[in-house]
Amino acid sequence: MSLRIGVVGTGAMGRYHVERLASGVPDAQVVAVSDVYVEGAKQVAEQVGARAYADGHELIGDDQVQAVLIASPGFTHEEFTLACLAADKPVLCEKPLAPTIDACLRVLEAEAVTPRRLVQVGFMRRYDEGFRALKATVDAGRVGRPLLLHCRHRNADVPPAFTSDMMITDSVVHDIDVTRWLLGQEIVATTVFKARPSSLAPQGLQDPQMVMLETAEGVLVDVESFVTCQYGYDIRYELVGESGTVALGEHPGVQVRAEGGHHGPIPPDYRERFGDAYQRELQEWVAGVLDGQVVGPSTWDGYATTAVAEAAVESQTKGGRVAVGLVERPALYG
Amino acid sequence: MSLRIGVVGTGAMGRYHVERLASGVPDAQVVAVSDVYVEGAKQVAEQVGARAYADGHELIGDDQVQAVLIASPGFTHEEFTLACLAADKPVLCEKPLAPTIDACLRVLEAEAVTPRRLVQVGFMRRYDEGFRALKATVDAGRVGRPLLLHCRHRNADVPPAFTSDMMITDSVVHDIDVTRWLLGQEIVATTVFKARPSSLAPQGLQDPQMVMLETAEGVLVDVESFVTCQYGYDIRYELVGESGTVALGEHPGVQVRAEGGHHGPIPPDYRERFGDAYQRELQEWVAGVLDGQVVGPSTWDGYATTAVAEAAVESQTKGGRVAVGLVERPALYG
Amino acid sequence: MSLRIGVVGTGAMGRYHVERLASGVPDAQVVAVSDVYVEGAKQVAEQVGARAYADGHELIGDDQVQAVLIASPGFTHEEFTLACLAADKPVLCEKPLAPTIDACLRVLEAEAVTPRRLVQVGFMRRYDEGFRALKATVDAGRVGRPLLLHCRHRNADVPPAFTSDMMITDSVVHDIDVTRWLLGQEIVATTVFKARPSSLAPQGLQDPQMVMLETAEGVLVDVESFVTCQYGYDIRYELVGESGTVALGEHPGVQVRAEGGHHGPIPPDYRERFGDAYQRELQEWVAGVLDGQVVGPSTWDGYATTAVAEAAVESQTKGGRVAVGLVERPALYG
Amino acid sequence: MSLRIGVVGTGAMGRYHVERLASGVPDAQVVAVSDVYVEGAKQVAEQVGARAYADGHELIGDDQVQAVLIASPGFTHEEFTLACLAADKPVLCEKPLAPTIDACLRVLEAEAVTPRRLVQVGFMRRYDEGFRALKATVDAGRVGRPLLLHCRHRNADVPPAFTSDMMITDSVVHDIDVTRWLLGQEIVATTVFKARPSSLAPQGLQDPQMVMLETAEGVLVDVESFVTCQYGYDIRYELVGESGTVALGEHPGVQVRAEGGHHGPIPPDYRERFGDAYQRELQEWVAGVLDGQVVGPSTWDGYATTAVAEAAVESQTKGGRVAVGLVERPALYG
Repeated sequence: MSLRIGVVGTGAMGRYHVERLASGVPDAQVVAVSDVYVEGAKQVAEQVGARAYADGHELIGDDQVQAVLIASPGFTHEEFTLACLAADKPVLCEKPLAPTIDACLRVLEAEAVTPRRLVQVGFMRRYDEGFRALKATVDAGRVGRPLLLHCRHRNADVPPAFTSDMMITDSVVHDIDVTRWLLGQEIVATTVFKARPSSLAPQGLQDPQMVMLETAEGVLVDVESFVTCQYGYDIRYELVGESGTVALGEHPGVQVRAEGGHHGPIPPDYRERFGDAYQRELQEWVAGVLDGQVVGPSTWDGYATTAVAEAAVESQTKGGRVAVGLVERPALYG
Repeated sequence: MSLRIGVVGTGAMGRYHVERLASGVPDAQVVAVSDVYVEGAKQVAEQVGARAYADGHELIGDDQVQAVLIASPGFTHEEFTLACLAADKPVLCEKPLAPTIDACLRVLEAEAVTPRRLVQVGFMRRYDEGFRALKATVDAGRVGRPLLLHCRHRNADVPPAFTSDMMITDSVVHDIDVTRWLLGQEIVATTVFKARPSSLAPQGLQDPQMVMLETAEGVLVDVESFVTCQYGYDIRYELVGESGTVALGEHPGVQVRAEGGHHGPIPPDYRERFGDAYQRELQEWVAGVLDGQVVGPSTWDGYATTAVAEAAVESQTKGGRVAVGLVERPALYG
Repeated sequence: MSLRIGVVGTGAMGRYHVERLASGVPDAQVVAVSDVYVEGAKQVAEQVGARAYADGHELIGDDQVQAVLIASPGFTHEEFTLACLAADKPVLCEKPLAPTIDACLRVLEAEAVTPRRLVQVGFMRRYDEGFRALKATVDAGRVGRPLLLHCRHRNADVPPAFTSDMMITDSVVHDIDVTRWLLGQEIVATTVFKARPSSLAPQGLQDPQMVMLETAEGVLVDVESFVTCQYGYDIRYELVGESGTVALGEHPGVQVRAEGGHHGPIPPDYRERFGDAYQRELQEWVAGVLDGQVVGPSTWDGYATTAVAEAAVESQTKGGRVAVGLVERPALYG
Repeated sequence: MSLRIGVVGTGAMGRYHVERLASGVPDAQVVAVSDVYVEGAKQVAEQVGARAYADGHELIGDDQVQAVLIASPGFTHEEFTLACLAADKPVLCEKPLAPTIDACLRVLEAEAVTPRRLVQVGFMRRYDEGFRALKATVDAGRVGRPLLLHCRHRNADVPPAFTSDMMITDSVVHDIDVTRWLLGQEIVATTVFKARPSSLAPQGLQDPQMVMLETAEGVLVDVESFVTCQYGYDIRYELVGESGTVALGEHPGVQVRAEGGHHGPIPPDYRERFGDAYQRELQEWVAGVLDGQVVGPSTWDGYATTAVAEAAVESQTKGGRVAVGLVERPALYG
């Protein structure tokens, strides 16, 4: 028995998901795709034998579609997610859940009154084997109670249109989500520090930044966001506990000894680094939906992450420490 | 369009392949399984909706079966592979191709007169990302012309029935295959050295051994075979070229700093270390067969590896250097 | 020709210096030692054939003493350093130069009017091979213009009397000095963040802390100070430049593979980690003095470091960002 | 109290020792040097305030000389060591003790009848911190009873006059000594394998080679000797025990992340890699002699190593396994 999936958005991310569903998830079948640029949708549809729509709402309404994957631009996420909720269809929504706190809250309120979760947000680091081993090590008490978390988030480069606030809303959101998931605590405040900008970054981009987060129980988290580091895609974490530390992020691959030194590779981009995580996210989501469950990152996670990101953007703009306030957590999210 | 596969043998290895076909190869469908222990076959068949046979020949003769995967005991490989050739069906045969040189030669002769290759042998290290990066680095000339190759092959432990010659025929065969594949050269001689046996090995097991291989162009290869090393499954390689070396086998995972030191994991067994390679082996085999091609390790590779292993067992038994003689390579194997 | 040295203070640090002078600096001769606990001074004096004094001022006045090493408690540094200046004798003063900005300024003013530098402050990390390689790599432009610096300063544990402000004045001062030396820039502001305290730290100790420093040219520096990390003495740095990063602090030693993993050592304390740096500091100081030069960390370095540390203690106490103001740099310090 | 030392031979190695005695061994004083090229001896003598001789025997006979360091060419070691024994003066003789078994035996016989050891042979790896940690780990039983030892001995390059047998007698002798010292066992047989020679090695040099050693208790040792590896001086060991392995030889230094990868240094030559070991060898030798003891590598070690090397050269020349026979061990060597 296969899960019949509709994919909203056939840009780079949408195509990436369609490919992974087709090549690595035997229990999934892409039966419909949509895009406002309908020619793109048709092209993808033809490759996998699916129907093509110009309008995501039509796709969501298609009786053949059992579950929906949203990979359209962020500002459209709210309306499509609400439509899925109205249609009672499970939905995997790429991050962010929605670009503003208010939009997130509208989705939260819509889902909170349903009998079971339907929405999963695409924070795929939780599906990476390394991050899972990191969490297992912490949860097993190997390093004692967590006190500090150091995060490094480096991209080789970004498209010209990338802006300073996107460094928070597009990159650091991953670290915000990992922090909350890894520590099982909400973030209550944030302070952003701006380094002198790299001369190799696009004009006007405040790159790099250091984002300090404080959790409800007093764990300090510092996130380096550096999106034009030139040399590769380098994601590293070190959690400091009371009796030890646990780190993630070395890149072994083959080790070459030549030209006076030893040398190892660093992945060029997120596809190479997190390809397996994206694959596993889809496999587990499909298996869960077929089993009647949605257990991945929730609407609450999407909302809380956006709330922290918004506070960080405020700190980035105005300076100083900004507190994060969250609404009460609905019962649906345990 | 899916490839309809029959799996001969539903012991541990057969079940492992069935699971991976079901969970990770969308284009494959297991339609039949067989085992002399027919209850086992029925159990597996039920899980994936396949037919069950007691006799592998019946499975091979089943019109629904388009391709065959042989995972039965080694001594049965010859007859089933020959049956597949007679039925003109592509076959993925677990290693060894056959346990004796003569048996291998009979398969080789049968296939050599066919218009195209049908047989692939299950040397799955060639499908591991690390081994591929190792080969790519060598082929790109990063370390110059190869001169030496150091191989470490360690298992945490082995079943009680494991014997000293199986250390060659079951373990070192992988290193023999990797050597031939990596260097693109045949092995012409071998000398086996026996260390004092570990007191933690089963009584009578000559563990560890050092196997020295010499290639046609004079590359020296030393293989450590240690199958009761206690601490994990540890596969490492270092190729020494004229201007540098390239190594494979560090295990990063998470790094813990605690109790006076830093600590990292080593995988417990081949499933964790080579799970991805097994998956990719099946994916590429299925994709190739659907495309009308068999390009993986060939009958010639199976024969040559068995010939080297047999020479090594002779050196292990009688001592000294033993030369390896191969028949002429049929044109089919380019 | 040997340099005749007097050592003020024969506590743990003083004895450590005397031993290293005796065993590893052929050109040095300890001719006098002093301590208010005169029995301790006599004991040390006997071992190396030196005179013992109860009063450091008498030692400084001893005609046999050509140069002075001050290893007495921090609050006595000012008076002894001033006495050395008055006596025109080169002096190596253990850090801190003096515990308050005002005291540092008095020494600065006294030396600033002399024709040449006489005072060196004991920031010995500048003499560590690793730190020198780090600086050489940065200075050579291997990673581009510096943007960020991440510092980790972990001790296994501290004596019971250790206080939260000593985490700045005793530990982070090293990172402050390294920052100024490595980047060639003054620090202009600091913000201290307090994590929840470790339950394994002595009652009342605010451990760990994160200290954020901002340099004159906008480099951001974050320092983790964690003095009861339990597992070892762990000093690590990563400098992030515009085109790459350079890191220091891996501890190789022997690598053990056992019990399911690989394991390496971390040094237990600063003596093992920085023993060579202390030795080289003394060798280079002695060689320089014999050559008529004092080129190590200066009174200005001692003053500036204390000024930053004092600002950090203020941030630690009152919260928020605290700016650092320095007096004008006297010409003597180039 | 200083030890007054005479140094025979003021070539590269002799000068290196004189420098290290002068700069890092406070208890040593070089009072005389000799060389057949007397101008060289005079130059060195002047730098350290010593007397210069053309004839090593005159130096040994000088009443001012209490102990002798021999750094002249290998073929002169026998006569100078015998002269030191005759003069009852402690001697540190650079390796080899002597180039032939017979010459070694003559020194052994001369010393064996003396009441205490006078001769130490310059196997300085025993003084390296890494090798000591390796031995301590093995001796502590961390990895169980030793079974195998893998040694890598790589030089970036060698002088044009370097010959294939020197790869054994000049390089592998270190590994032979380390094997005997680390395992506490004699070597009973050896087999040399020749790889195709590197095209980057001087014409006629059989580089690299693999040397297999077998110990009295059945430990297998394989040594890679590769003296034109181009990329650096790379010495690595892995000892395999019954329950784990312990390895030595990673080169951390600073780690650079740039240009798509991470990069670390490898030392260019033995001076950088083993400078500290040479220094410690001299410090401990001087301290021991002043204390009336010679406890470093003995004449027996020098003899046994030469015996194994000679057998290896025979295997290299004639092929096959060559047994090593040793005379009975004199009581003096415990």
